[in-house]
Amino acid sequence: MEIKRFTSYKAYEKLSHLSQSPIDLTVGDVVNADRIEKYKVSQNGFDYLFATQRIDDQILAELQNLADEARVVEQFMAMKQGESINCIEGWESENRQVLHTACRDIFRAIPSAPEATETAKKELNTLERFLADLDSGVFVNEKGEKFDTMVQVGIGGSDLGPRALYLALKNYLLEGREVRFIANVDPDDVAEVLADINLETTLVNVVSKSGSTLETLTNESLVRSVFQGAGLDPALHFIAVTGEGSPMDDSSRYLATFHMYDYIGGRYSVTSMVGAVSLAFGLGFDNFKELLRGANDMDLAAESRDMQSNLSLLTAMIGIWNRNFLGHETVAVLPYSQPLSRFTAHLQQCDMESNGKSVGRNGDLVDWKTGPIIWGEPGTNGQHAFYQLLHQGTTVVPVEFIGFRSNVYDLDININGTTSRQKLVANMLAQSLAFAIGKKDSNPNKNFGGNRPGSVLLGERLTPYSMGGLLALYENKIAMQGFCWGVNSFDQEGVQLGKVLAGRLLDLMVKAEEGSECMASEISLEESLLRAAKIL
Amino acid sequence: MEIKRFTSYKAYEKLSHLSQSPIDLTVGDVVNADRIEKYKVSQNGFDYLFATQRIDDQILAELQNLADEARVVEQFMAMKQGESINCIEGWESENRQVLHTACRDIFRAIPSAPEATETAKKELNTLERFLADLDSGVFVNEKGEKFDTMVQVGIGGSDLGPRALYLALKNYLLEGREVRFIANVDPDDVAEVLADINLETTLVNVVSKSGSTLETLTNESLVRSVFQGAGLDPALHFIAVTGEGSPMDDSSRYLATFHMYDYIGGRYSVTSMVGAVSLAFGLGFDNFKELLRGANDMDLAAESRDMQSNLSLLTAMIGIWNRNFLGHETVAVLPYSQPLSRFTAHLQQCDMESNGKSVGRNGDLVDWKTGPIIWGEPGTNGQHAFYQLLHQGTTVVPVEFIGFRSNVYDLDININGTTSRQKLVANMLAQSLAFAIGKKDSNPNKNFGGNRPGSVLLGERLTPYSMGGLLALYENKIAMQGFCWGVNSFDQEGVQLGKVLAGRLLDLMVKAEEGSECMASEISLEESLLRAAKIL
Repeated sequence: MEIKRFTSYKAYEKLSHLSQSPIDLTVGDVVNADRIEKYKVSQNGFDYLFATQRIDDQILAELQNLADEARVVEQFMAMKQGESINCIEGWESENRQVLHTACRDIFRAIPSAPEATETAKKELNTLERFLADLDSGVFVNEKGEKFDTMVQVGIGGSDLGPRALYLALKNYLLEGREVRFIANVDPDDVAEVLADINLETTLVNVVSKSGSTLETLTNESLVRSVFQGAGLDPALHFIAVTGEGSPMDDSSRYLATFHMYDYIGGRYSVTSMVGAVSLAFGLGFDNFKELLRGANDMDLAAESRDMQSNLSLLTAMIGIWNRNFLGHETVAVLPYSQPLSRFTAHLQQCDMESNGKSVGRNGDLVDWKTGPIIWGEPGTNGQHAFYQLLHQGTTVVPVEFIGFRSNVYDLDININGTTSRQKLVANMLAQSLAFAIGKKDSNPNKNFGGNRPGSVLLGERLTPYSMGGLLALYENKIAMQGFCWGVNSFDQEGVQLGKVLAGRLLDLMVKAEEGSECMASEISLEESLLRAAKIL
Repeated sequence: MEIKRFTSYKAYEKLSHLSQSPIDLTVGDVVNADRIEKYKVSQNGFDYLFATQRIDDQILAELQNLADEARVVEQFMAMKQGESINCIEGWESENRQVLHTACRDIFRAIPSAPEATETAKKELNTLERFLADLDSGVFVNEKGEKFDTMVQVGIGGSDLGPRALYLALKNYLLEGREVRFIANVDPDDVAEVLADINLETTLVNVVSKSGSTLETLTNESLVRSVFQGAGLDPALHFIAVTGEGSPMDDSSRYLATFHMYDYIGGRYSVTSMVGAVSLAFGLGFDNFKELLRGANDMDLAAESRDMQSNLSLLTAMIGIWNRNFLGHETVAVLPYSQPLSRFTAHLQQCDMESNGKSVGRNGDLVDWKTGPIIWGEPGTNGQHAFYQLLHQGTTVVPVEFIGFRSNVYDLDININGTTSRQKLVANMLAQSLAFAIGKKDSNPNKNFGGNRPGSVLLGERLTPYSMGGLLALYENKIAMQGFCWGVNSFDQEGVQLGKVLAGRLLDLMVKAEEGSECMASEISLEESLLRAAKIL
């Protein structure tokens, strides 16, 4: 499929023109009941309210044209069907398929990518048997006790997504079960987690696709040494998730091994074995399958070319309006849901590693803006932290609110006629309005400029099914934005240079400890940095 | 003190000119051993390496001139000495002193603001006695047992700073002690925390300066109801930190009450009773005092007008260079230290709520950029998440690395000749270099543009003393930037509108439940929003 330049599309030109005088949301009753009802899409259990974006019918029509011209949904379909889209034409690149969607396309007789789905089903079956064996006592510890804790050792995609979803769905935890995560090569991370759990009844789940991630292998060794120091046999406690044939794919070292494949990128791997093992251990296999069902249903809805019936596409294109036409560099993702406290951190990776690119899939440098900076914290906490800048600062930040009408736990209290849940949702809706319409005041310090765009995504309750839908919605949105910009959202060459330089610094440290001294005249840049930092 | 317009300073004009061709860090050996050694300041146990900023001697000289012209340090001194700088001239405003520094100025015979320091000392004495009474069993639970857990209920400044510092210093925890935090009005937050602790041996520390914070009062009621439901007497378990004379300042409802004062802003309140009670309960009174000592020593160093001997001022002015002259909208604060995992979230409030302003202290609208967006996650985790965009994205993000040469726990492992700590520090230093110098590659996808500014702040070890220094360094930096921009960094009028609108939505919800229906013709904007959200 030929990839055109983003700025070459006819709709690009029209949107550029329209962006010179976007609708003023602060004037009169521009934001009124009709507008609120009109700019609302309900799909897959979510209501998306976007009347508080700086859009109108004409802009929406041109965004649809842009999506059509860029063949966003066709590219999405090609992805799902296994085209090798992870590539840069004319240059050495990963040259792989992108098939994370196949991991959850397990509910239909004829999935989009039958082979990858077949493989995913086999892994799920293996996992289901393994979990049953844990339940029935086939696998037990040195004392014959069952395991109740899993520590996932992984970093980046092998950490953020599984961790965010585990925290989101903790209320579904099986009785007595717990999952913990170790990511950072900072040994203080390992120390704190291990001090907090009973090693004897703990399984350690080491997750690395390549089987060669520095942090993960280092932490695995450190955790193994602690187990051995406690008289525990790692062979009874360690399991692995890794690529088939990777250096870690060694069944003699692990109680069990689960596989992921090179067509699943780390940041899109939550619904593969990378997330499956810990989540299904903690929440139960059936709950994990519900998560897959929610994700798959969202993937299916994402196949529509009509923005009005495709939330993934609609949110993608509104994001492009804010990024490329209104010129906003960042997006704040603000879940009004404490269980989603780490979901923004997951999206930060998924989005920024995917679309923080300067080269098109055709090998040309882009001369348009690509992925924004994603940041945010849960509401209402953020209201008491950084909302001051969002309301009155000199930089405009588009906001994406996420909320639910019901609690996940049964605890609540009615004070002054409303529950805490009602207060939470009322605050979210109020903020969306406040950002958009502002408030005039003669005191300049009490004046609110408004016209700060935002939208609200509202679900009934945070469940495995809705969590799966929310995850897939954002994954698809991100991929679709990449398709529209014409970048490869599935590689990450930008992480290489730091690795190389870190390797050089570590070599110098080793040499210094071996006592091999350099001549003063030979001091390299790296060496001088280590000396200035008082490391050498 | 007259506040001039930021753009009226002579140095502003010169810096604007210099910013048109800032030093190119990617050319030849511009970043070399000499430069690294030259752009380094060592102070209060920290080494600050800033050779990887896009600065040179001329720029530094003009930044010093700018600081002098704006009388940044004079304003800082006026703040410390109790001038009423929390105001907007000619308009209704808080009109208060700003004296958080007085809370830690307790080590000198003649402090900068004697009265406020005397008050702070009294509160510290009260706290010390209370903690001794807990130790000796004067205050015990219904069964005569001692308390081992404290739950801090607060939000914003009554949560983020104390939480961040507690996590940072957890290795100093007194045997058996634990502190937990509840902030969000989401009742699921309360449910998860309370499910995890033994209520019988728990003290609940309710923190609200105004004594009227919606979230905190709601959560207090919810937690009280859970205690009562468990047959526990809140009068034996609840303590308070609040302003003298606030609605919460009612000794009949609390086992003990500690005070803060209107001259201490929430986001600057960690070293007041807001942080003191929980931190001293968890880490011990002496460790909290060491934290105060570290903060105070940094405050004293901040009194120098010379950037080269004043890290607070130097980092403030480099931040202004990046924000106003190089035009960067965000700053990533990246601690290579897992214990500092929430320090960036604290700074996000401290910085964005302070300087996310559009009005000068003289009441004029600003026509220059003020506070940036602060975001970030710990390294090396971030390297596997969002660094792709930092290296190769279309938006440049200045980065602030923070790291330490030693672990806080004793656990570590040597693999391939280096410890995990060495790997952590090597990665941080390598990244600072990689962002600055980049790497040319004929494959455009493997090309690194460089010239992405950053700096490294390196300490020996994270201790109460160094944590205090780090906290004060950033507090002072933020205040000094505000002084330079001429804004009031100590109010937060931008949070009001959302509160008002949320109140209206809650009123509508109450009315709806009472059954008082509106006529269709009278439907308000707020009501239509609630209907669209399926709340009404």
